[in-house]
Amino acid sequence: MVKNFTGRKTSFIPFRRTKPGIGAANHTTTNGRSTVTRHLTQYAFGACLSGTLVHFSDPTSPVQLNVFTYDENSYTEGKYKKVDEIPNSSLTSAAPMLWIDVDGVHQRDIIAQIGNRYDIHALVQTDITTTEQRTKLDVLDDALFLVCKLIFRDIGRTGHTVIEQISFYFKENLLITFQETPKDLFDSIKNRIRQGKGRIRRSKIDYLFYSLVDVIVDHYMDVLDTMGTKVESIDNQLMKTLKRDTLESIYDMKRDMLYLRAIISPLKEIIIKLQKEEETQIMQESTNIYLKDLFDHVVQVNDSIDTYREMLASFIDFYMMLNSNAMNEVVKTLTIISTIFIPLTFISGVYGMNFDIMPELRYKYGYYIVLTVMASLAMFMLACFKRKR
Amino acid sequence: MVKNFTGRKTSFIPFRRTKPGIGAANHTTTNGRSTVTRHLTQYAFGACLSGTLVHFSDPTSPVQLNVFTYDENSYTEGKYKKVDEIPNSSLTSAAPMLWIDVDGVHQRDIIAQIGNRYDIHALVQTDITTTEQRTKLDVLDDALFLVCKLIFRDIGRTGHTVIEQISFYFKENLLITFQETPKDLFDSIKNRIRQGKGRIRRSKIDYLFYSLVDVIVDHYMDVLDTMGTKVESIDNQLMKTLKRDTLESIYDMKRDMLYLRAIISPLKEIIIKLQKEEETQIMQESTNIYLKDLFDHVVQVNDSIDTYREMLASFIDFYMMLNSNAMNEVVKTLTIISTIFIPLTFISGVYGMNFDIMPELRYKYGYYIVLTVMASLAMFMLACFKRKR
Amino acid sequence: MVKNFTGRKTSFIPFRRTKPGIGAANHTTTNGRSTVTRHLTQYAFGACLSGTLVHFSDPTSPVQLNVFTYDENSYTEGKYKKVDEIPNSSLTSAAPMLWIDVDGVHQRDIIAQIGNRYDIHALVQTDITTTEQRTKLDVLDDALFLVCKLIFRDIGRTGHTVIEQISFYFKENLLITFQETPKDLFDSIKNRIRQGKGRIRRSKIDYLFYSLVDVIVDHYMDVLDTMGTKVESIDNQLMKTLKRDTLESIYDMKRDMLYLRAIISPLKEIIIKLQKEEETQIMQESTNIYLKDLFDHVVQVNDSIDTYREMLASFIDFYMMLNSNAMNEVVKTLTIISTIFIPLTFISGVYGMNFDIMPELRYKYGYYIVLTVMASLAMFMLACFKRKR
Amino acid sequence: MVKNFTGRKTSFIPFRRTKPGIGAANHTTTNGRSTVTRHLTQYAFGACLSGTLVHFSDPTSPVQLNVFTYDENSYTEGKYKKVDEIPNSSLTSAAPMLWIDVDGVHQRDIIAQIGNRYDIHALVQTDITTTEQRTKLDVLDDALFLVCKLIFRDIGRTGHTVIEQISFYFKENLLITFQETPKDLFDSIKNRIRQGKGRIRRSKIDYLFYSLVDVIVDHYMDVLDTMGTKVESIDNQLMKTLKRDTLESIYDMKRDMLYLRAIISPLKEIIIKLQKEEETQIMQESTNIYLKDLFDHVVQVNDSIDTYREMLASFIDFYMMLNSNAMNEVVKTLTIISTIFIPLTFISGVYGMNFDIMPELRYKYGYYIVLTVMASLAMFMLACFKRKR
Amino acid sequence: MVKNFTGRKTSFIPFRRTKPGIGAANHTTTNGRSTVTRHLTQYAFGACLSGTLVHFSDPTSPVQLNVFTYDENSYTEGKYKKVDEIPNSSLTSAAPMLWIDVDGVHQRDIIAQIGNRYDIHALVQTDITTTEQRTKLDVLDDALFLVCKLIFRDIGRTGHTVIEQISFYFKENLLITFQETPKDLFDSIKNRIRQGKGRIRRSKIDYLFYSLVDVIVDHYMDVLDTMGTKVESIDNQLMKTLKRDTLESIYDMKRDMLYLRAIISPLKEIIIKLQKEEETQIMQESTNIYLKDLFDHVVQVNDSIDTYREMLASFIDFYMMLNSNAMNEVVKTLTIISTIFIPLTFISGVYGMNFDIMPELRYKYGYYIVLTVMASLAMFMLACFKRKR
Repeated sequence: MVKNFTGRKTSFIPFRRTKPGIGAANHTTTNGRSTVTRHLTQYAFGACLSGTLVHFSDPTSPVQLNVFTYDENSYTEGKYKKVDEIPNSSLTSAAPMLWIDVDGVHQRDIIAQIGNRYDIHALVQTDITTTEQRTKLDVLDDALFLVCKLIFRDIGRTGHTVIEQISFYFKENLLITFQETPKDLFDSIKNRIRQGKGRIRRSKIDYLFYSLVDVIVDHYMDVLDTMGTKVESIDNQLMKTLKRDTLESIYDMKRDMLYLRAIISPLKEIIIKLQKEEETQIMQESTNIYLKDLFDHVVQVNDSIDTYREMLASFIDFYMMLNSNAMNEVVKTLTIISTIFIPLTFISGVYGMNFDIMPELRYKYGYYIVLTVMASLAMFMLACFKRKR
Repeated sequence: MVKNFTGRKTSFIPFRRTKPGIGAANHTTTNGRSTVTRHLTQYAFGACLSGTLVHFSDPTSPVQLNVFTYDENSYTEGKYKKVDEIPNSSLTSAAPMLWIDVDGVHQRDIIAQIGNRYDIHALVQTDITTTEQRTKLDVLDDALFLVCKLIFRDIGRTGHTVIEQISFYFKENLLITFQETPKDLFDSIKNRIRQGKGRIRRSKIDYLFYSLVDVIVDHYMDVLDTMGTKVESIDNQLMKTLKRDTLESIYDMKRDMLYLRAIISPLKEIIIKLQKEEETQIMQESTNIYLKDLFDHVVQVNDSIDTYREMLASFIDFYMMLNSNAMNEVVKTLTIISTIFIPLTFISGVYGMNFDIMPELRYKYGYYIVLTVMASLAMFMLACFKRKR
Repeated sequence: MVKNFTGRKTSFIPFRRTKPGIGAANHTTTNGRSTVTRHLTQYAFGACLSGTLVHFSDPTSPVQLNVFTYDENSYTEGKYKKVDEIPNSSLTSAAPMLWIDVDGVHQRDIIAQIGNRYDIHALVQTDITTTEQRTKLDVLDDALFLVCKLIFRDIGRTGHTVIEQISFYFKENLLITFQETPKDLFDSIKNRIRQGKGRIRRSKIDYLFYSLVDVIVDHYMDVLDTMGTKVESIDNQLMKTLKRDTLESIYDMKRDMLYLRAIISPLKEIIIKLQKEEETQIMQESTNIYLKDLFDHVVQVNDSIDTYREMLASFIDFYMMLNSNAMNEVVKTLTIISTIFIPLTFISGVYGMNFDIMPELRYKYGYYIVLTVMASLAMFMLACFKRKR
Repeated sequence: MVKNFTGRKTSFIPFRRTKPGIGAANHTTTNGRSTVTRHLTQYAFGACLSGTLVHFSDPTSPVQLNVFTYDENSYTEGKYKKVDEIPNSSLTSAAPMLWIDVDGVHQRDIIAQIGNRYDIHALVQTDITTTEQRTKLDVLDDALFLVCKLIFRDIGRTGHTVIEQISFYFKENLLITFQETPKDLFDSIKNRIRQGKGRIRRSKIDYLFYSLVDVIVDHYMDVLDTMGTKVESIDNQLMKTLKRDTLESIYDMKRDMLYLRAIISPLKEIIIKLQKEEETQIMQESTNIYLKDLFDHVVQVNDSIDTYREMLASFIDFYMMLNSNAMNEVVKTLTIISTIFIPLTFISGVYGMNFDIMPELRYKYGYYIVLTVMASLAMFMLACFKRKR
Repeated sequence: MVKNFTGRKTSFIPFRRTKPGIGAANHTTTNGRSTVTRHLTQYAFGACLSGTLVHFSDPTSPVQLNVFTYDENSYTEGKYKKVDEIPNSSLTSAAPMLWIDVDGVHQRDIIAQIGNRYDIHALVQTDITTTEQRTKLDVLDDALFLVCKLIFRDIGRTGHTVIEQISFYFKENLLITFQETPKDLFDSIKNRIRQGKGRIRRSKIDYLFYSLVDVIVDHYMDVLDTMGTKVESIDNQLMKTLKRDTLESIYDMKRDMLYLRAIISPLKEIIIKLQKEEETQIMQESTNIYLKDLFDHVVQVNDSIDTYREMLASFIDFYMMLNSNAMNEVVKTLTIISTIFIPLTFISGVYGMNFDIMPELRYKYGYYIVLTVMASLAMFMLACFKRKR
């Protein structure tokens, strides 16, 4: 079963562990720091957010390791199940680029093996396997480590919007990407490596990194466009009558925007940091113009989120105004009708009483006089209301 | 058909691609970066925002190239359809100024030819042809690139307010402007070049750039003045009765202000950046006083937008207060009438019952006593309400 | 006719041109920059804001030039109609101070003559004649230029609060002030010059400038005090019943505060800038302590505005609470009365039916039983309501 | 008569002059700067805010001068009425500390005499006698000048919370404090000087200054605690029914918080400034740890104010929710009763008509059928409502 | 009795002294600074917040001193009641690490003894014993002092969430922690010391400090997860009908979030400060990567709080919308029913009058005509309402 993160049933809270159980839990200790329950809860959480419950309910599904080795002239590709199978390769600056795309982070031992082989700090390993991370960039001694979220419409399979965590660990000639499930998001990049199209094969590892993040940001834009269409359709309905469904949509979108903003907005600072990053000497100066372009896109996405948020807020304001207006109209109608007829009904009630001695009842023109009085009263009341308006 | 951006039917969301279709779309690759669907959707989007559907529904309408070459003493002008036709001209610092005004960005090949001839980076070319750009300034190696929006009332033709994108690419002696459609906005500047009036012919290319942006900002002020008149007229209606139309106006203007702010506010930072810009040596120091003046105008426009936004927000607050007040009045009326007459009607109902044995009915003064009781009750009720007030 | 800026009919929007007419307007060109309609609309605008329609509807009223020349020992004064009539005077640092107080900016040629004589940049001249300027300080090569607003209660004449623009242009020994109309605001300063009281005659031109701005800020405080009294009186009414008038007052004051803040708040930054200003060597260090004092006053004015704004906002909140509370009370009354009497009336209605066969009607104690039932029902209902509370 | 600043009748507006009268007022000139009405209104204002009307309505009550001279070994104390009576004392750095505690600032001549004797700038003198000052610190050439507010519960006398202005003027060995009225707030400090307890006698003048400000801040905390108890009690009432009194309390506290924040928040910046103050060489480095502690307390007070403000704001929100909820319940009850009985009453009304020919009336089972129809209708209506819920 | 801080009865105001009594209180003087009532109120306050009333109502419960001495090779542990019993140990940089875990701060003399022995400044001692401190870090000459709050679910004992203050005082080889009550929160750390697992025994005192703070932050996360579950469950109920309970929950959580933010948010700045701290040479560079990780967790906690706060705010907005919508529906129903039946009832009332001469009553088809008229009127009214919708 796959759940949509825009759906009502889905857990909407970012960065949340679903089964904390700190009281009874096992206080395992990894590398000397208290991890309490962090490694326990990742599965449950990932399932809630990314909606790919199938994968995580079957933690035995094998982790795939897709390895690309390339330089301007040559290119090799391989799929492996075990870390040992990955061919040894030099990581000197003259060596070809090595990209290891790890699909699946639920097998802690495989991540640990990769970590040992490529010298990844234990805390970073924990970050990789913990899928409720915030979007963040860590500048390590000779490597960079970026955690962010993939948000994409899973068109081929479920049509839902899926959220997954992706981590990038990269050094001079090495990029390791950790995804939660195998998917075809980066196929266009892989094809470019295979076919030697574009700048990728001619460039260093930082350009590959940029290209992957660019794809991620493009998918952010795509998801936001879909939401934009929704916002627009609510805008069009707003002037007509609002159904309860629309109210729920507004509420859901407001929550989704909150969530998307929490995921995407840190990227702005991160890209600025990457542009200025000099210590690790990973980012090439020639890549800066691409990072600038990426920055523009992220700012655009953030602006869209802010705009949508203000739109949704003004929907609520406006809905309240419209409602209050409609209410006033309705109550006015009620008041006018009541104020006119209740006194008249009282008068007719008086002359419906059965007292033996009621002289008016015997009077010849009584009925006509009462009718006239009633009519005059009604006219007078109506006039009052008209003047008040 | 031309649509107004203040109209109900228009897409109001800034920076939005209308037909993303990332799933099925063609992942074409330009210059090695994934563009996904960006170049596909620009037409649809431009159509929505600028409201000039005619142009974009006919992507075969030719692109016009208006070329001005001038220095203090001489001046030439030409209109071309092809890039090759533009006469070659030296771009050394001693050469005359060259202004190429490109009307139409929908023919990607022409933009590419211009790009090749004048050495414009591929990413900048993409920005030019993508009409959903944010307002931004890029400082390139030896050139500046500004994207902003034209907002003007299309008085001659439709009377609607039209939004279009305009890009400025300029180097030492060269300015290329890219507009979406041909129009007569810059005719006053063109005349000044033709007639040698003012400082333009005597100045470097940065003064021409300033003059064009000044015209754009003047049109911002003009559009805001029109909106100001609207805000003022709503203010005058507010104390009278508010119609549903007015509510819709308030809502529409709030949305428009959101949009205008997103477009205009980045200009403030950009002008400050231009004033400090020294690396490219394009901006002359003598132009600084004009940029300062321009800055004042942009701040003025931003202040107006903020003021209008606060006015509109306080309209809503105040409307809610008035409405709540009116509601209270109406409900009070209803309550007073009901509270007085409902018990009286009940009493008359009691004596309208047809029981055989109802001694009061037989009593000689029964009717008069009941009338007196009713009158006293009504007086008492009224007195209660008066005291409560 | 003179209009009050706190009145309902007045244009409330700051920095607004009332007749933009950019479409059909004349694109006159001053000194090479596009002024579009700016010099056309100033009259209409000034009329709206400052409320001195008489002056501007008669643009032929002559401009007055009041000239003061003074140093510690001597002092001369003169009133002129033409710029030529002003006696020539040296502007070297050893020369006496020269203060030209220009009353009226609607005669563009006179401003131009002054500008030529005292070497005022064309852009600054445009700023002087355009009465919808923002409050701003321009640091020019050897001069300072300050535009701000006079806000004062025109007690002698109309009793209304009047807003006018005032510009200060000052160099080493020269101060030119440009006011929209002649008035007696600065009479105390003029008297001090005449009588040689205080520090003015002993000081440089910057002290005169400070003294004038101090008077302006004192009038800000005075106007705010008047508004404070209003706020306080609303505060006292709030707990009693609020009339529609009070609602309108709250709304009007909120708008006025918005406007005053826009005018006054930039002064804070400006005074800090003046304190640090060293390039032009106009501001003496000995004046700094006075500027500090002035700064304190401006901060005080700003704080008052902010406090009033928060007060007014909390009026609205509180009014809504009170109203909602009152509404609840009223509706409860209605509900109790209706809930008790409507069923009773129904019962009496039943026994008022005229069916031939209605056994209860014939029953001897029918009437009494029904009365008892009704009384019990009423008691029960009342008990329900009491328990609910 | 003494008024409480939390009371309804008190002027709540900070920094406000109550009788501006700029129009007709006397434009006296002190030291060459226009003071307009400032020295005129201080009494009225002080009376409003500090609530010590008695003092100010009797401006002839004498000013008290309490003088302490002390060093580590010796100590003298004296009370004087005139400035001349204060014994002359050297102010060299080797001399003992001199603290002059001036109780009363309403006698301008005494302040002027003190000013002359101890070389206080005329503008500072005006600040001392003007009791509507903002909290501020002035760094003068060789002295520091702090104006702030005393806020304390006047337990011994009235039980009300009293606000007064206090100014500190201090140089190397001299501290002059100016209070509006004599009171026993600083008795603990005075005792410490008398008894030679603690660090005071061993320290320089800055430690005395710190000790006094510490007492002031302690009283802020005390006043806030009292308000905290109120906030808490409102919090407890909120879930029960809210009386109009509580609404008024919320409103009053909101206003008070606004006022307290305006008074207290600048102290934060001032203490930081004092810690960094080196020019005047008054603040000793050894006092820094005490200033840090003072800073913590001020931050704590500010945090409490912010927390209370948010609490009060959420009271309003929550009250509106509760009210809206209650209203809904009430209106639902009304609607259910009305919707059921109004149609039934109508039916009974129909058969109460007196037409000669109404066949149903003659029908034997007519009455019973109508009763059955009525019962069914009521059941049906009730069912409808239940389903809707 | 133990109270939960999320419960209704608990004092919710952070940093508040419950029994100020400044008026009558004893002005004891500690070390020369006025402490007014601070040491008096800590018990009452601690009881309110931490909910461990039992402990504080019995201030004679002995303070426990748990002492750990360790280096890479050896380790000793001891529990003492008196400070004298703690074995003397050198604090030179070569000496083993010394951790004194003080459980209980209510016995001022014990804190004073510790203070004297380990040279803790008197102001810091006051901070330790005052349990209403803000979260803060003091950088002292050769030591660091951190005060923060423990927030943990007391699962073993009461199941409630408990808040206590904890202080860390640490120098080169010494860490003293002050807790309000003994508890088993740090048992995992203690075990690691005992068993020599992880990095603790091999590292300096700063790593122990980090480990303890890490446990604290882990418990923050755990508490927030529990609250997240609540927020989520409210979110799920929101679309159904909201009970008064849920409203109270929203209100309580809003207040709790306010409180948690006040406690946790300063930690962010503090960790940054610790990372940059160089003066005291306590923090090792090798610990920086752990502090970074800690920082990430604190940011995550803060982000969660902000997200929950926005969620809760949008609950209120949305609830108001839903309520207003429901109200409209209900009032519409009432209006339709009333508007249709009230006039009909009036008509039937007219023909129920008992006038002798009412010709319609005698007319043969009178009854049928009236019935028809009534039916038509009802149809007409219904049609009106339908059109309005």
